[in-house]
Amino acid sequence: MSKRKSIKLGALIHGVGGNAAAWRHPEVPADASVSFPFYKEQALTAEAGKFDLVFIADGLYINEKSIPHFLNRFEPLTILSALASATSKIGLVGTLSSSYSEPFTVARQFASLDHISGGRAGWNIVTSPLEGSAKNYGKDEHPSHGERYQIAEEHLDVVRGLWDSWEDDAFVRDKETGVFFDPEKMHRLNHQGRYFRVEGPLNIARSRQGQPVVFQAGSSESGINLAAQSADAVFSGHESMEEAKSFYKEVKTRAAAAGRSKDDIVILPGIGPIIGRTQEEADRKFDELAGLVSIELALQVLGRFFDHHDFSRYPLDDPFPELGDIGSNSFRSSTDRIKRTAREQSLTLRQVALKAAAPKGQFVGTPDTIADLIQQWHEEEAADGFIVSSPFPSSLRDFVELVVPILQERGLYRTEYEAETLREHLGLQIPVNRNTSASVKLHS
Amino acid sequence: MSKRKSIKLGALIHGVGGNAAAWRHPEVPADASVSFPFYKEQALTAEAGKFDLVFIADGLYINEKSIPHFLNRFEPLTILSALASATSKIGLVGTLSSSYSEPFTVARQFASLDHISGGRAGWNIVTSPLEGSAKNYGKDEHPSHGERYQIAEEHLDVVRGLWDSWEDDAFVRDKETGVFFDPEKMHRLNHQGRYFRVEGPLNIARSRQGQPVVFQAGSSESGINLAAQSADAVFSGHESMEEAKSFYKEVKTRAAAAGRSKDDIVILPGIGPIIGRTQEEADRKFDELAGLVSIELALQVLGRFFDHHDFSRYPLDDPFPELGDIGSNSFRSSTDRIKRTAREQSLTLRQVALKAAAPKGQFVGTPDTIADLIQQWHEEEAADGFIVSSPFPSSLRDFVELVVPILQERGLYRTEYEAETLREHLGLQIPVNRNTSASVKLHS
Ligand SMILES: Cc1cc2nc3c(=O)[nH]c(=O)nc-3n(C[C@H](O)[C@H](O)[C@H](O)COP(=O)(O)O)c2cc1C
Ligand SMILES: Cc1cc2nc3c(=O)[nH]c(=O)nc-3n(C[C@H](O)[C@H](O)[C@H](O)COP(=O)(O)O)c2cc1C
Repeated sequence: MSKRKSIKLGALIHGVGGNAAAWRHPEVPADASVSFPFYKEQALTAEAGKFDLVFIADGLYINEKSIPHFLNRFEPLTILSALASATSKIGLVGTLSSSYSEPFTVARQFASLDHISGGRAGWNIVTSPLEGSAKNYGKDEHPSHGERYQIAEEHLDVVRGLWDSWEDDAFVRDKETGVFFDPEKMHRLNHQGRYFRVEGPLNIARSRQGQPVVFQAGSSESGINLAAQSADAVFSGHESMEEAKSFYKEVKTRAAAAGRSKDDIVILPGIGPIIGRTQEEADRKFDELAGLVSIELALQVLGRFFDHHDFSRYPLDDPFPELGDIGSNSFRSSTDRIKRTAREQSLTLRQVALKAAAPKGQFVGTPDTIADLIQQWHEEEAADGFIVSSPFPSSLRDFVELVVPILQERGLYRTEYEAETLREHLGLQIPVNRNTSASVKLHS
Repeated sequence: MSKRKSIKLGALIHGVGGNAAAWRHPEVPADASVSFPFYKEQALTAEAGKFDLVFIADGLYINEKSIPHFLNRFEPLTILSALASATSKIGLVGTLSSSYSEPFTVARQFASLDHISGGRAGWNIVTSPLEGSAKNYGKDEHPSHGERYQIAEEHLDVVRGLWDSWEDDAFVRDKETGVFFDPEKMHRLNHQGRYFRVEGPLNIARSRQGQPVVFQAGSSESGINLAAQSADAVFSGHESMEEAKSFYKEVKTRAAAAGRSKDDIVILPGIGPIIGRTQEEADRKFDELAGLVSIELALQVLGRFFDHHDFSRYPLDDPFPELGDIGSNSFRSSTDRIKRTAREQSLTLRQVALKAAAPKGQFVGTPDTIADLIQQWHEEEAADGFIVSSPFPSSLRDFVELVVPILQERGLYRTEYEAETLREHLGLQIPVNRNTSASVKLHS
């Protein structure tokens, strides 16, 4: 292990699980995506497993073809705040789009969650893949992929500037003299940019962890650049360890080129572990889940990646169709991968759709197999840890009860929380307030 | 009591209490406005007193002259969501500005809070008094008072439309057939208005109470009209019972003129009860609190109502200055009242400032005096209930332990929660979904 950080783990809590038809499985509460008891139970299970964080995904557009548990689900900041008072150590990370929000509001809400939770908040900044989002926000057009990332960069810069509005010792609160704060330590941002103009100051101070942790979850060129330059953590998706390794290397190299240390950014691929006492049991569980997906539903799930493109018009058993530009302004890194894999492996539309709707990752097997894979990905620098998405509600419990103890025994994973804040869990430094002068820093 | 609803009570939880200098009082935790334990304790005290709701105010602009506990405070939706999982019955009402928010986001966040809390959410729609808010949201100008109310009207209409996106029986979730929802029962809003264009549908269903309860808190002509036409509840502020009575009558009359029943709207003036074993003790407590306010601070508090106008330039003991239009685009109903009172009672600037910074309401006295006043205001139709703002953190506990039992003994106030949702607590009907056809309604 040497100086490498121990393995980090997040739990993606998302209504009804593993694929678009998982809600049909007898074990799954079909209303899980709006059940607070369900979310609470999952968060407490993750906390019992000493996870670094829970992660809430999000989306701003639905239609008749959306995945069932996206139609009716909690909004991230509200559900995370509710979980803040139901938990005590675990980090609370939520997705919020920089394309359809105001930096002042975003900065406030995450800072407020950060105070409520005692320094456990994280923001997953996304650019919103779905073009329809524009129609819910009075915009004529969904901004282009490139422009969305330019907006994201400026948005994040403003939010971070607002988070530093108050120096850490600004609030004097001296009852005797009546001095509540030191006006010299309150700072206006006075941001005037291409997309945003924000004066500040923010009406909330920094928290115990300085600023909420910033996650990033887009893997295109622009996504990687944003992550490398600015993010504290990356949530990624990969089909193989080799792919993950090259992504990992790319992000860390670019981060170093941007003048950062490799340890300043934590890379967490998503995995969906299915655990059996034997490999056969695990495979059977996967088949059971995959078997719930009809081909119609699979085409719909595939279509969503391509901005709800209608795939039912192509012959199912012909080679995957030529799509030209379709999808490139939506989930670009995902659609690029789907197209590439279809070409390289000569897949039919049916094969591509079923793979998209019920992907069988590597992480299907016995607790030992899964622990081995986790250790291998970590050791070979394919990952600093993982975001665990649970195909069944019970998968998270299985993971915590069966896989976590193996990782602990091997000395790869914490046996107790050593800290209180998300930043500390992830081994990230508290950022210095941009308004605190160097001389002050020396003295403090 | 006949058919009159019993008295309704809300608790305004706001950091450090009763006036701008209250944080200096030995009893007050000076960091209360960002202390979750403080908010939780206050909410649980209110719930122990069977209060209908807790209320969180808000603001979008601060500067060096802001009131101390506004400089650094929680954002309403996050703190209410955290309180949702720390409480079980009490309603959760928060302020959010229609001038600086997107209806799609507002609808989602309150609907999500409503689900998390099992039907206890309420939205206090405000138009934002402070002109500086524009500078935090990239706007050239704060919209005029009149325009802000036009925006508010359209905003509220959109939010309510989005809340009705799904009919109550839209989610079939039939595991056998694989039918998750009935697309006929999903409705797009397709709103195209002057200020907003929103397609929908919202990605969350209606809650147990149908829709979050809508509060309104501006008392100008335009404010009263918005309330009378659309609000479920009004939070108001009055200097005397006579003033409250005429406001009450005005709102109820206009509500009736708009085709609503008088019972469809609940009017809750704010009070700041200070309780002593004797009248003298209560007066002493008030004086203690008022005595913390310096004249400089008082001028600052007064100035905030007038868009941070600098009152230090006028002679303190001359008559209150002529201000022309200053303040009329900010807290208009409040500034109108301040100007009127100053004129009618020939007050000096010093008197006006001290009154604004440490107003001595009627509700200072023994538990019996305060219970009598509450009963009188209720019986004489000056109020349907009250929003109780606590000058000291202990005031709420005193109120719950000493005043509430008297009201209960007199049969004016519940002794146990009879219901689970905020709408039921307030005796308000569950709104029919605008997309549910009459024939369906007959059958259900
Ligand atoms: C692992 C992963 C998780 C994501 N989670 C979300 C999410 O919760 N909400 C969202 O709107 N987009 C999400 N995205 C989409 C990205 O934020 C991004 O908009 C999309 O992938 C297109 O950008 P890209 O081409 O850079 O990947 C996710 C993407 C990845 C790879
Ligand atoms: C009792 C009361 C409470 C209010 N609470 C808030 C609040 O929490 N946040 C806010 O921005 N404005 C608040 N306001 C201001 C109003 O929403 C409104 O913007 C202002 O009073 C100007 O409108 P008006 O002239 O109609 O009163 C409140 C006003 C009153 C009377």
